[in-house]
Amino acid sequence: MARTLGFLGPSGTYTEEACLLYDPSAELRPYPTITAVGQAVVAGELEEGVVPIENSLEGSVNFTLDLLISQPSLFIKGEVVVPIEHYLMAKPGTDPAKIKVVYSHPQALAQCREYLEKNFPQAEPMASLSTVLAVSDAIASPVPAAAIAPRRASELNDVDVLDRGIQDVAANVTRFAVLSLSDHAPTGRDKTSMAFTFDVDTPGLLYHALGEFAERGINLFKVESRPTKQSLGQYIFLVDCAGHREESPMKDALAALSQPISMLRILGSYPQWTPTGSPTGSPKP
Amino acid sequence: MARTLGFLGPSGTYTEEACLLYDPSAELRPYPTITAVGQAVVAGELEEGVVPIENSLEGSVNFTLDLLISQPSLFIKGEVVVPIEHYLMAKPGTDPAKIKVVYSHPQALAQCREYLEKNFPQAEPMASLSTVLAVSDAIASPVPAAAIAPRRASELNDVDVLDRGIQDVAANVTRFAVLSLSDHAPTGRDKTSMAFTFDVDTPGLLYHALGEFAERGINLFKVESRPTKQSLGQYIFLVDCAGHREESPMKDALAALSQPISMLRILGSYPQWTPTGSPTGSPKP
Repeated sequence: MARTLGFLGPSGTYTEEACLLYDPSAELRPYPTITAVGQAVVAGELEEGVVPIENSLEGSVNFTLDLLISQPSLFIKGEVVVPIEHYLMAKPGTDPAKIKVVYSHPQALAQCREYLEKNFPQAEPMASLSTVLAVSDAIASPVPAAAIAPRRASELNDVDVLDRGIQDVAANVTRFAVLSLSDHAPTGRDKTSMAFTFDVDTPGLLYHALGEFAERGINLFKVESRPTKQSLGQYIFLVDCAGHREESPMKDALAALSQPISMLRILGSYPQWTPTGSPTGSPKP
Repeated sequence: MARTLGFLGPSGTYTEEACLLYDPSAELRPYPTITAVGQAVVAGELEEGVVPIENSLEGSVNFTLDLLISQPSLFIKGEVVVPIEHYLMAKPGTDPAKIKVVYSHPQALAQCREYLEKNFPQAEPMASLSTVLAVSDAIASPVPAAAIAPRRASELNDVDVLDRGIQDVAANVTRFAVLSLSDHAPTGRDKTSMAFTFDVDTPGLLYHALGEFAERGINLFKVESRPTKQSLGQYIFLVDCAGHREESPMKDALAALSQPISMLRILGSYPQWTPTGSPTGSPKP
């Protein structure tokens, strides 16, 4: 039976593209918010949920990290990395030279600003609530209009694709997290995501924490400090490292970490995404 | 003579609020983009420019960091921390019970989602290109409408303030950077921002780099790894530490850093923002 996979909807988003890359046979269910995806996983309505976690176009990464930190029963079971490529689309038969309005989410419009100024100087940018809703806004427009949206939206709507890869900075990817009630069994090419804070604000605490990984030759993929909501001076640290929490040397590093740390939340161990490899990985025998 | 201070416009943004906190007597000039502010500083049109750098509502932080990394003549001369408080405003005389539409930037709408569902269940959220343009969208609306926008926008427009502090998560601040052709002289309570990358992807390089600060008792305010545009696996590290680059121990730590590092860009040393203290700080005699 196909697994039920919730995602930040609606259909046509980059998150749906991530779901299709992750498991083309899953039964997909759109949810209106990242929090709603997480709650459905916690409630057992879904086996897994897919939400953006890093470098998203939609500003929703903080929601995902806050969700993971506040919901101790949620874990990251996998990741999917999707190249972000903006498409320009319009109602069939629209003459590009006559386009008066270009709809999209303001962030997508900002990412295509130079392209629009050069190629559609006569067109006015107009805000939509999402890149997907931009397509319906463009179709409903009384004047000739186009939308900046994901490729997937051009498959789900009756539109002409006028151009693709129109973002001013060519290379852009979004990393998505697969949320579940448990993380993934070891596969031999795993990573572990964690969040921690310190009780006191002493110089060197983060350095010593990272030392537990460095001394064991564990590669650090990502480190980020984010202000906690209480005050700007207190930070929560988010770290992604190579290795699985059930295997040495990661297991030993995590055990050694606990000393000066006031909160350690292991967000999950899961296979590293490889575009060509098996996305879900196979548990070791 | 008042200093000329450029900012990410238009008037009424949180960035303008940051300018007024930084230097109430400055001559303010709005610019359409973060890049335009930076270019005007580089070209000598402006003495200083103010742009959001961290935790912004407008998704523009990456633009600022990219600007600083790509423009070696730009430095951070100061910082300003502004509490983000969303106001709900409408045309004078609007009956709140009859509001049919609420305009704002999609991120601000998302940040006030629970508030709107509870207090304006009959109102439809509508996207605007910015929180400031939301005010003119609401004023021009043929049906009763409100806008979510900064306090400053309520002073610059003929509107009634219907509510304030309507964001679902109460505590939210944005940090702004003051850009200039030089950074700030030492004041005794400074911080230094830097960006660096490594040639090779060896475990522990970041750890050893942070060690140069930790061993000297230098407090780390912020560390962030960001994917470089070339490939997802290569990172640029952004670090904020206590101290001034011209003073020990920071000066010694920076000198020691250079060994395993392929690129080190000191973005500037500048006084730490204190809401009650002198925003610009005074150079030491």
